[in-house]
Amino acid sequence: MVYLCRKLQIMLDQSTICAISTSPGMGAIAVIRLSGEKAVPITEKIFRSPQKNKILADEKANSLHFGQIIYKNEVIDEVVIGLFRAPHSFTGENIVEISCHGSIYVQQKLLEILVENGARLARPGEFTQRAFLNGKMDLSQAEAVADVIASSNAAAHKLAISQMRGGFSKEIIELRDQLLHFTAMVELELDFAEEEVEFADRSELRQLAEKVESLLKRLKNSFQLGNVIKNGIPVAIIGETNVGKSTLLNALLNEDKAIVSEIHGTTRDVIEDVINIHGTAFRFFDTAGIRETVDHIESLGIERTYHKLSEASIVLLVVDTENPFEIIKGRIEKIRKRIADGQYLIIVANKIDSGKTETIDALKKEHLVENEHLVFMAAKVKLNLDELISLMTRFINIGSAETEDVIVTNARHYEILKSAHEAILRVLHGLDSGLSGDFLAQDIRECMHYLGEITGEISTDEVLEHIFKNFCIGK
Amino acid sequence: MVYLCRKLQIMLDQSTICAISTSPGMGAIAVIRLSGEKAVPITEKIFRSPQKNKILADEKANSLHFGQIIYKNEVIDEVVIGLFRAPHSFTGENIVEISCHGSIYVQQKLLEILVENGARLARPGEFTQRAFLNGKMDLSQAEAVADVIASSNAAAHKLAISQMRGGFSKEIIELRDQLLHFTAMVELELDFAEEEVEFADRSELRQLAEKVESLLKRLKNSFQLGNVIKNGIPVAIIGETNVGKSTLLNALLNEDKAIVSEIHGTTRDVIEDVINIHGTAFRFFDTAGIRETVDHIESLGIERTYHKLSEASIVLLVVDTENPFEIIKGRIEKIRKRIADGQYLIIVANKIDSGKTETIDALKKEHLVENEHLVFMAAKVKLNLDELISLMTRFINIGSAETEDVIVTNARHYEILKSAHEAILRVLHGLDSGLSGDFLAQDIRECMHYLGEITGEISTDEVLEHIFKNFCIGK
Repeated sequence: MVYLCRKLQIMLDQSTICAISTSPGMGAIAVIRLSGEKAVPITEKIFRSPQKNKILADEKANSLHFGQIIYKNEVIDEVVIGLFRAPHSFTGENIVEISCHGSIYVQQKLLEILVENGARLARPGEFTQRAFLNGKMDLSQAEAVADVIASSNAAAHKLAISQMRGGFSKEIIELRDQLLHFTAMVELELDFAEEEVEFADRSELRQLAEKVESLLKRLKNSFQLGNVIKNGIPVAIIGETNVGKSTLLNALLNEDKAIVSEIHGTTRDVIEDVINIHGTAFRFFDTAGIRETVDHIESLGIERTYHKLSEASIVLLVVDTENPFEIIKGRIEKIRKRIADGQYLIIVANKIDSGKTETIDALKKEHLVENEHLVFMAAKVKLNLDELISLMTRFINIGSAETEDVIVTNARHYEILKSAHEAILRVLHGLDSGLSGDFLAQDIRECMHYLGEITGEISTDEVLEHIFKNFCIGK
Repeated sequence: MVYLCRKLQIMLDQSTICAISTSPGMGAIAVIRLSGEKAVPITEKIFRSPQKNKILADEKANSLHFGQIIYKNEVIDEVVIGLFRAPHSFTGENIVEISCHGSIYVQQKLLEILVENGARLARPGEFTQRAFLNGKMDLSQAEAVADVIASSNAAAHKLAISQMRGGFSKEIIELRDQLLHFTAMVELELDFAEEEVEFADRSELRQLAEKVESLLKRLKNSFQLGNVIKNGIPVAIIGETNVGKSTLLNALLNEDKAIVSEIHGTTRDVIEDVINIHGTAFRFFDTAGIRETVDHIESLGIERTYHKLSEASIVLLVVDTENPFEIIKGRIEKIRKRIADGQYLIIVANKIDSGKTETIDALKKEHLVENEHLVFMAAKVKLNLDELISLMTRFINIGSAETEDVIVTNARHYEILKSAHEAILRVLHGLDSGLSGDFLAQDIRECMHYLGEITGEISTDEVLEHIFKNFCIGK
């Protein structure tokens, strides 16, 4: 049924779509992509090969062809054409990719010519949408395509690639299988409803429901981490003036090994305080407020300042070991009170190369509570910087280990998982209160329905439109 | 000898280069290009095809291959690989093009992996430079590649494409052939120098030199037009307040049919006053000064204002036919005095739908001098807008017709053509003053040397470096 619906959607839209698939703007080359039944015939009309008798329609799939684009007897550009044939292409349709010179004029002109010859400008994400409709990938994989493109650090990228390759879908299919088993048991019972027999062993049902519930909960809870990986782990560097906060930030900045070439528009240009450290994005946010008011703990601005602190996943409290231990102890305790569940406090005992021995010794004896760490550093000479970084990245690893690799990063999936989780909780509650099989079955079906919305087995035009409108054009 | 030098340069640099060839930034896809002997082996190391035994080195040229990029046992991306083999590629070397997802992270990571596996980051224009060194194109064609990429309107694009395809080179080769014929005649004479005979008929020599001189002059003079086409024809719209200047500019703006899709960073975003009208770029510059001071012809600012006027190729003088003819006549005469040789004055008699009949009739009888045009318009309702546009584009056509299609757009070529022209003028002067053959031959050789610098038959590392450093990376 599902596939029939998809086929129908495609049949209704037999148009051949085209778009510039490379980043907008000027480049050495640009790629214009055509997908649909008429991709090859449309290209044929405007393409001239130096081999006079070459007919693109007769050429092999996955082949490249040099030639010219001709419009009104004028050479518009020298291009290379790539041919892909249905169903072995990204969209599952015939695809032509035209690599042209990357001038804005040529790109626009080519689009214009393609449209004039029967193609239509693609909507955002329409290529991926067609891939989904043609059964090349499920909906959660299609959504991951946009995440792959948007990912700006190794950790987010790794999640997106794994999702695009079906990692998340596997988990969902597993869940549905378990629910199906559950339904089978309950429905057998329904067939004999009038006889009021319970075929399905209630304790077995409960065991299954608990397993599903725990899986859903784990996935649901992974969203916070997923979101943080995708957008960068929020880090607050706090401490008084002159303890070495800027020195520390600069030292961390120098660890930014990800950027090897000078590319304009990298993350750092856009959002100045996102730093990729060893493949993980950290979002350092402005804690100027905390810096200035930590001394005037009762001052007016303090609540606003601590509100900011509460947004951080990691709090780096920098203290100066040149100060007496009592002062430092005071600072630590003040901040410690503000650290919430799930937050991670790293005390950076700075300037140990010039610090007081008594202070350092006393700090070493300091009793750390859960989710607290202490690192002795000399930020200026980068002493123990690696230790700090490994403590910071540990935050992500702890989370990953807990969620066994599948991490939800998509807000839509999160919302659906929440609903599915509520449904399964109702099932558990129903079992507790001895609800009859037909009521249980209703909640189970609801839960399955939700999971189908993630993979796209159940989808409406509205949902699809909402998902793909956030894609870039050309994908 | 020349080709030997080129071969030597390539032999000295056997490195395989890589670069992101598409526009920097995020897109649906990006293309990373590798060129050099090891392009395929380097790719082989990081590429995994779903067909397990596929070896890229054994695959056909001009073929496409889907697969994954693997780094430290992790899937970095799903990509399509395009294979091109020497000498049938852009650079004349083996080329691999990797189409990856267009995330900035993936692009950077792939470059990093390629470098780790033995490639080197390409310098700006290095792919095109290799194409030149491998004899795939001459220097003027290589230079045109950058112009093709930079061209932002149809006229500039047409010139650049024609140059890239060898239009300009053909002209230069023709010139060199004529000079060679010239040298042959003179050198025959030199062989018999002691006998003081003149084998070469002086009148024949003069005829030839004059022909070359006129060719060089034509090419040299085409630069002004070429430059104007490349950067947009400078247009000044002048006239008093309320004659309809803004209305006219808006009407012209609406003719901007070139932009069919919403692409960021188009010319209009960058330079607000460049408008593509029917494929030709016009650069409207601020004539606020002229507007305000035209009434106070003796005012202090007037010289500065007219200096601006002198920068325009086309002057649009807008007059209001609701005014008495005498006033309009006065304006026309004032402006006419300021129109220099090569400038083009178009008098726009505006508001003819509400203008005075006497004024319109008188204007119709106005005697126009060379390079002057008169168009009756109602800018508000776009009446006769097409006529104005065709008058404006005629400016470029007149120029093109004069220069018989080959138009110099490159400042380097212009400088060389100036020197070559001076040399041939010295030859003509030498012929006048009865200079002996060996002196003539020296100037002819100099002239030939210059022309060789255009096509790159004579080139130094310094010149090449200067040319290619302005290319974008990846081309």
